[in-house]
Amino acid sequence: MYDVAVIGTGAAGISAVLTLQALNTELVWLGPPRLSPKISAAEKIRNYPGLPMVSGDEMREVFLRQTQEMGITVTPKNVTGIYAMSDHYGILCGQEMFEAKAVILCTGVESVKPIPGELEFVGRGVSYCATCDGFLYKGKTIAVECTTKDLEHEIRYLASLAEKVYLVPLYPNSEITAENVEIIRKKPLGIEGTKKAERLVFADREVDVDGVFMLKRAIAPSVLLSGLETVDGHIVTDRQCRTNLKGCFAAGDCTGRPYQYAKSVGEGNVAAHAAIEYINQR
Amino acid sequence: MYDVAVIGTGAAGISAVLTLQALNTELVWLGPPRLSPKISAAEKIRNYPGLPMVSGDEMREVFLRQTQEMGITVTPKNVTGIYAMSDHYGILCGQEMFEAKAVILCTGVESVKPIPGELEFVGRGVSYCATCDGFLYKGKTIAVECTTKDLEHEIRYLASLAEKVYLVPLYPNSEITAENVEIIRKKPLGIEGTKKAERLVFADREVDVDGVFMLKRAIAPSVLLSGLETVDGHIVTDRQCRTNLKGCFAAGDCTGRPYQYAKSVGEGNVAAHAAIEYINQR
Repeated sequence: MYDVAVIGTGAAGISAVLTLQALNTELVWLGPPRLSPKISAAEKIRNYPGLPMVSGDEMREVFLRQTQEMGITVTPKNVTGIYAMSDHYGILCGQEMFEAKAVILCTGVESVKPIPGELEFVGRGVSYCATCDGFLYKGKTIAVECTTKDLEHEIRYLASLAEKVYLVPLYPNSEITAENVEIIRKKPLGIEGTKKAERLVFADREVDVDGVFMLKRAIAPSVLLSGLETVDGHIVTDRQCRTNLKGCFAAGDCTGRPYQYAKSVGEGNVAAHAAIEYINQR
Repeated sequence: MYDVAVIGTGAAGISAVLTLQALNTELVWLGPPRLSPKISAAEKIRNYPGLPMVSGDEMREVFLRQTQEMGITVTPKNVTGIYAMSDHYGILCGQEMFEAKAVILCTGVESVKPIPGELEFVGRGVSYCATCDGFLYKGKTIAVECTTKDLEHEIRYLASLAEKVYLVPLYPNSEITAENVEIIRKKPLGIEGTKKAERLVFADREVDVDGVFMLKRAIAPSVLLSGLETVDGHIVTDRQCRTNLKGCFAAGDCTGRPYQYAKSVGEGNVAAHAAIEYINQR
């Protein structure tokens, strides 16, 4: 069992792991190993103290080197669900489970909002995780909405299983070409069905499906961890970065605006201290 | 009238001014011009994202250069009082007054706690500001407690005015030598008097005085700004770094633990955004 699981490799996650490591905490750090693609999105960062006028790419390199020099490595897993046990958390990554006494959510925000029916049908035909649920749709017809090119390997995996894939890429330059994949370049308006997801609806057509995969950088936090209090999609935290769930902390964009590197770094630090205090007081 | 006055040149103040400047805000930045001496106090900083394993001195140089490159300069003034007007703040520095629509307090924490009688007699024989009140004690007998060597120029100024100075330096290697200065290397236990401060008391002696100057890096925030809500010496803020007073924000060590560069930098950023939002909504 780890002391702390840090979920997310953006600025908040980096700050949290640096502090946890400096204080000799047993930690597991889950997320994209080359750090969150969001870090390198900025063209020029003018207001981060210590790195004058860097590009996002330069910042990413500095952060990456710093964590490596501290002996911290990312466990490159996509977290698909978090479960509050009586005295610890189980963090599910596909088929693999990690356990930690405390968890720090640094999951960012997904700019793409859930569509009508999405949250309603999660677990009943709607899935956020190709590697978890893909095998359920072997030989079936599915729709796959994907918000980011990074996740195309998951699309390929799904296309290798399903009979037919309606692919809805919400980014330009999709590179998926396969006989059983039909690309639809439109925003889906909703998911419909009676007891489970049965149709993905667009303005001018609808497709009948057995399931819908929504591949996103960040899953809505309240879906990721049941019972977590959110307002307008942001995790509610106090000044110690505590959420409404004991032993669960949150930092960075997922807790709300301003969406700024400095703010994320600050909260990652505060959350790390709060998590250590929580563990010591257990 | 400035948009925002930032008070304090530690990590929180630096982060606030970088963000305010990046967003084209009219700002005045008050404090020690070579930045807060606290920044350079650390031997090695292991957990500040972006500056791996720097010393405090190295961090100070990076921060200083960055603010200079952004065209931001410190107004080297010691803030002695802040006054809430109907729609703005007046910031008194000795005899000089600055006005701003909003104020961000990044005043740090003073590790030296007030002694009995100190807060009680502020304005009645106890002063935090040599340049403000020194002339009142021309030809009189005063005690001067000083917590930091940086402020020795204020001691010299007082010694040039007063007939007799009992100097209580709370740091090693005081360099003050003057005929009318008697150094007492003991911790004062309290200030006594009937209607005003009349005596500074030590374990084994007491000295009769006309006034007592307490020269510190940070004045207790609730003394600096009347009506400001504090708990255990820390300014009470919400997650937007708002205090209980409209248009007054606080960031960094003065808002509480953890006393960490990353936390201060994060709050400075958040306070800057909150101040801008406040001004825009006025």
